Amino acid sequence: MIKINKNLLNVQQVDNFEEVSKRVNEYKINNPNNKLLNLGVGDVSKPIIKEVIDEMNKAINELGNIDTFKGYGYFYGHSFLKKKIIDEYKCFTEEEIYISDGAKTDTTNILELFDKDSLACLFNPSYPVYRDALDIMGIKYEYIDANEFNDFRPLPNKKYDIVYICSPSNPLGIAYDKDYLTKWVKYALKNNCIILYDNVYDSFIRSSNVPKTIYEIEGSKKIAIEFRSYSKKASFTGVRCSYYIIPNELIIKDVNKYWKKRVMTKFNGSDYIAQRGALATYSDKSIIKINKNIDDYLTNARYIKEELEKLNYKVYGGFDSPYLWIKNKNNMSSWNFFDLFLNELNIIVIPGIVFGTNGDNYFRVSALANKSVIYEAIERIKSYEKEN
Amino acid sequence: MIKINKNLLNVQQVDNFEEVSKRVNEYKINNPNNKLLNLGVGDVSKPIIKEVIDEMNKAINELGNIDTFKGYGYFYGHSFLKKKIIDEYKCFTEEEIYISDGAKTDTTNILELFDKDSLACLFNPSYPVYRDALDIMGIKYEYIDANEFNDFRPLPNKKYDIVYICSPSNPLGIAYDKDYLTKWVKYALKNNCIILYDNVYDSFIRSSNVPKTIYEIEGSKKIAIEFRSYSKKASFTGVRCSYYIIPNELIIKDVNKYWKKRVMTKFNGSDYIAQRGALATYSDKSIIKINKNIDDYLTNARYIKEELEKLNYKVYGGFDSPYLWIKNKNNMSSWNFFDLFLNELNIIVIPGIVFGTNGDNYFRVSALANKSVIYEAIERIKSYEKEN
Repeated sequence: MIKINKNLLNVQQVDNFEEVSKRVNEYKINNPNNKLLNLGVGDVSKPIIKEVIDEMNKAINELGNIDTFKGYGYFYGHSFLKKKIIDEYKCFTEEEIYISDGAKTDTTNILELFDKDSLACLFNPSYPVYRDALDIMGIKYEYIDANEFNDFRPLPNKKYDIVYICSPSNPLGIAYDKDYLTKWVKYALKNNCIILYDNVYDSFIRSSNVPKTIYEIEGSKKIAIEFRSYSKKASFTGVRCSYYIIPNELIIKDVNKYWKKRVMTKFNGSDYIAQRGALATYSDKSIIKINKNIDDYLTNARYIKEELEKLNYKVYGGFDSPYLWIKNKNNMSSWNFFDLFLNELNIIVIPGIVFGTNGDNYFRVSALANKSVIYEAIERIKSYEKEN
Repeated sequence: MIKINKNLLNVQQVDNFEEVSKRVNEYKINNPNNKLLNLGVGDVSKPIIKEVIDEMNKAINELGNIDTFKGYGYFYGHSFLKKKIIDEYKCFTEEEIYISDGAKTDTTNILELFDKDSLACLFNPSYPVYRDALDIMGIKYEYIDANEFNDFRPLPNKKYDIVYICSPSNPLGIAYDKDYLTKWVKYALKNNCIILYDNVYDSFIRSSNVPKTIYEIEGSKKIAIEFRSYSKKASFTGVRCSYYIIPNELIIKDVNKYWKKRVMTKFNGSDYIAQRGALATYSDKSIIKINKNIDDYLTNARYIKEELEKLNYKVYGGFDSPYLWIKNKNNMSSWNFFDLFLNELNIIVIPGIVFGTNGDNYFRVSALANKSVIYEAIERIKSYEKEN
């Protein structure tokens, strides 16, 4: 008798997010005329810049012409894009770079690189996809607390084989500085631990003491795999293009030789059109426009922070990141606070509990929405606070 | 100490294909002026039809405008495309359909659905990706012989939990008829075995006794997961769009509830532009043009078959499929025959051994190349045979 992979039965995320959707949908059915403002979802609202649109149109038209048609790309990505990535890092070779279709895919699939008996370390709270992917793979994990007492900067006190670090952090909205990351790199070098460095919000980094990449930290090429994406940077959440670096120096011998086998077996290369679009993000003109877009999101974040602090909310994050991690008032639990915002203010936030037990007294707000949505939401919160 | 997933060390495919590339590259370096004709790679040569190109350009331009911008799609695919798929099958609901980025990804990732202690059945020969994916997952498998003695139509004589069936078959070039597939469905129903039905060459089916889908066979919804793709049908090998069906009726209880958890955890939805392109393949005008393209490939296949049979080659396949499975002359082994064709005729084929030990006396030819390449290759083979 065929049996299901029992690990799938452990996955919690769908249930959590389904609970958010369920409550939102119930509210909509009962209150069809009330306008909901969504500060929950971490999706971008800015359209893709013209330079990138033009390049993708060009790429598509090539595919319609017999003389310029291109079929399968390369399993590991087109050279034209890898060259730009190498220019940006100012190191690495093409064989250390993998172009892919999204950081969620990449940060979860990478677990196939490791022995099932590895022990992983997760921040509590953290992006729940890490936990669910570990569950599906049957790899054990433990949490370390990221909370106000340690300034959301936990350090391990035992030996782990793998650790997920997300910086700028989803959901904490914090970008970790060089000092803190150096501690992790030293720990990893000492303990032969691999850091899976989820750096998909790198384009939001403005502070000079925050490394743009983990590879700025000495020794990190031996123990870190870094993940990046065009999703937030270039509004590619619908287009899908990402990349990750596995340094040849990594302490796993011949790591790229073996990982290439995995990729070749289970992936047929990333979309050509998306890769051409990604290529166009590197022109001088594109960089200026993209930075302007990100600055607008950061301005949103700062505005939310300032206004909510005036209302005596305790707000973390929002610098170098599109996310704010905000403490519920009156010690309310996540779901109660979520319901309050939904029912009384018609604002959708993400209940912190979705990211781990330490999130229960918090909610996550995204500054990636349109400015008008954010301003309207803030006005509603102000009025509500005045009345209550 | 971090350890590598030992299963990765077993993957053979890269080595086999690297061997093909290595020999081809060596030849090129030593003979830079000789023109090589590639009948090996299973990539398409026809450009994407205008209707699809236009739709993709439209979709891209939407993404460049704030009023029509779209971010994340749905994890499981856009409704507009699922509706077309449902129309074609004339059954299934949207929740039974998953839009994805390629059949290689889908036919390999699906193994995460099953218990690691399952026993899988593979045809010898078959698409090597199945074997390699099973190896990576640590799922055991056994081969059943597909050879001239059983007309390449093997049947199992023991209990398996999973079987991969590819029809129209890569590499055999055979499309299995209703009678044969019915035997498999009956076997699967009796033994609670799941058929992973790789149907990515469905658009090449012209014979009336060959089902366009496994779901034409009674009872198959209980035991079959079907995979399809736009790669060969619509020249999407560079664009990436595929789909698969997991029927709610499947004997694994609540299968879609659990599989959705997997997809949501490890995938962020398929490219919007590709899905819009796929949508455009369903118009009446597109269907006519696409069928014409496929007919051209089938004409290539027939031409290769006829010409090689005149030269006393034993040729299988080439009906309802772009592939031909051809017996080496003089009982030559795969690699020797590959070298002969490469060195003497400057033609690249795929050595049958790549697909399994039963392939050692065969080579695979693809009719997906341009007609001119195929005609030139046939002329070379004719001249060679005349002289030898």
